[in-house]
Amino acid sequence: MSMKLSDLGEFGLIDRIRKASDRNAKRAPIGIGDDAAALLLSPSSALLATTDMLIEGVHFDLRTTDLYSLGWKAAAVNLSDIAAMGGLPRFCLTALGIPPSLTVEDIGEFYRGVTACLKKFETVLVGGDTCSSKKGFVISVTALGEVVRQRIVTRSGARPGDRIYVTGTLGDSGAGLELLRSAECGVRSKKPECRKLKEKHLKPFPRVAEGRKLALSGLASAMIDVSDGLSSDLGHLCAQSRVGAEVLVEQIPLSKELRSAKALKQPPLAYALSGGEDYELLFTVPPGKIKKLKAMRIAATEIGIITRDRSMRLIDEHGQGRPLTATGYDHFRYGRRRGSVR
Amino acid sequence: MSMKLSDLGEFGLIDRIRKASDRNAKRAPIGIGDDAAALLLSPSSALLATTDMLIEGVHFDLRTTDLYSLGWKAAAVNLSDIAAMGGLPRFCLTALGIPPSLTVEDIGEFYRGVTACLKKFETVLVGGDTCSSKKGFVISVTALGEVVRQRIVTRSGARPGDRIYVTGTLGDSGAGLELLRSAECGVRSKKPECRKLKEKHLKPFPRVAEGRKLALSGLASAMIDVSDGLSSDLGHLCAQSRVGAEVLVEQIPLSKELRSAKALKQPPLAYALSGGEDYELLFTVPPGKIKKLKAMRIAATEIGIITRDRSMRLIDEHGQGRPLTATGYDHFRYGRRRGSVR
Repeated sequence: MSMKLSDLGEFGLIDRIRKASDRNAKRAPIGIGDDAAALLLSPSSALLATTDMLIEGVHFDLRTTDLYSLGWKAAAVNLSDIAAMGGLPRFCLTALGIPPSLTVEDIGEFYRGVTACLKKFETVLVGGDTCSSKKGFVISVTALGEVVRQRIVTRSGARPGDRIYVTGTLGDSGAGLELLRSAECGVRSKKPECRKLKEKHLKPFPRVAEGRKLALSGLASAMIDVSDGLSSDLGHLCAQSRVGAEVLVEQIPLSKELRSAKALKQPPLAYALSGGEDYELLFTVPPGKIKKLKAMRIAATEIGIITRDRSMRLIDEHGQGRPLTATGYDHFRYGRRRGSVR
Repeated sequence: MSMKLSDLGEFGLIDRIRKASDRNAKRAPIGIGDDAAALLLSPSSALLATTDMLIEGVHFDLRTTDLYSLGWKAAAVNLSDIAAMGGLPRFCLTALGIPPSLTVEDIGEFYRGVTACLKKFETVLVGGDTCSSKKGFVISVTALGEVVRQRIVTRSGARPGDRIYVTGTLGDSGAGLELLRSAECGVRSKKPECRKLKEKHLKPFPRVAEGRKLALSGLASAMIDVSDGLSSDLGHLCAQSRVGAEVLVEQIPLSKELRSAKALKQPPLAYALSGGEDYELLFTVPPGKIKKLKAMRIAATEIGIITRDRSMRLIDEHGQGRPLTATGYDHFRYGRRRGSVR
């Protein structure tokens, strides 16, 4: 039987969340339950802080995600931001606006997803806020991490001649979302050829280990996570580094599942360029450090080169170039909204 | 002429927020505009972190608050949590879900309020997230602060015999909200007798200096901010300290504006006990330290004593006691909802 939040109450809920969370008294002497959490960092570290909001009907649709995956993803997208700075995620806070339609079990399931993701990356849930929302589930997550001060990797360090790399494969998440919404491959479909793409959308895996290695080794000159799609995020990196880029179409890593998916409306490349939510790391490496990068065996693909000319170009297999324009999601330009992807 | 967010775009908005914010390159070498902010704390400090969500129609009503005050308050309620731990607020992150009804000017006004409050308390806006909300303005604020490790004041250190103190006056905010909603003293009313109560609701002043002094001096054995009303927050403090309390009705500090307000539906004491949102500090002091507290000239009133018996009692002017039960706001117990107060 499902329990109503109105029976449990706000403080009953906070108590359940506290009990379900991992604790780490050494790093977080005061966690959930006081006015603020008190946390300890390594003395030589800089603190990293990032926050993201997810709103039902804008960022997610409860018809295409289960609550466990949603919890995982809400945590993962924030850890990905910490990874993109070369940091180690340490602590997490959640603020939830909960609509009357969600039960105690739903929120429990959401927190099981949050804490499963946090546990995987040795991060502790240390606080938060729960309140009622009249309509729609609202999630705000803050992740805190640490990084050796001299090893922070920003978006602004790319220089002409640096090679551009990306971890994993691109476009799977955007394609997965389209499948989740489709008749053939929707939420309930068990078709094995759809599974991986849908999974990549529902439960992205933040590249914490890769980001950390790249930062500590000093190999990456700039880094960003791919949350808006390759075109947008490379655009951010280039703009902040005041450079341009040439990307080789043939080199963009596409999974075999994406290449072979039959139910998709667009060619695979479209999802890689503007699908978003892959949460892979996009980074640049100066030419003199490529040998060392290869020796490190980080699963990343070279996709292009940073140019002095501040435009972005896409080069096809015949060497023909065309402008690459940012096509990611802008939250306030409704004409360009792609759906739930951010 | 008002500008639409759809004309400015998400990244244009982020750029405006960045330009309007104070910067502190020494403490925040990387602020708004990268994947995460990179921040520096004093090496001997513990990090304090707190987050709060405010939802239109639940926590605030744009018919009874202007956007500048709302921005101030969103920041202030989080700084108050840092103050309640004895900490110094340092950094702030905001995540906003913005409905189509709000203009660029509205969001600018909101951020002017946020940054005015942060500036007052030497706190820097270092990051955030802006996204679209289909319906209703959603605000999530995270405040980060620091505190000398050995001086953290929690909710759980109160001992039998400790005296109970509260800063400022109680009940003004709850009464102010009622006035804001009333015909006689509503938003547009300039009546001087209503002004202070309304102001206290709209623009609470977090007791950062007081919290800091109490922590550094080692005088407070326990502390909490009054966000839910005296009865609830004293209840939290007692529960976490495993003690009870006796509060002298006559001693509860009520402003002359609250005592003399004519348009209120309930007696002044009701607002103090369960009005909430006063953001004063409620703290306990061992008997041996009261002399030192008095010498420090902190504007606080002694209102009662901590007891071994774990119940809370209210003692009237004739020495008659009655149980004091928590009557603050519970977000999921709809029958007890008081309105927008949390």
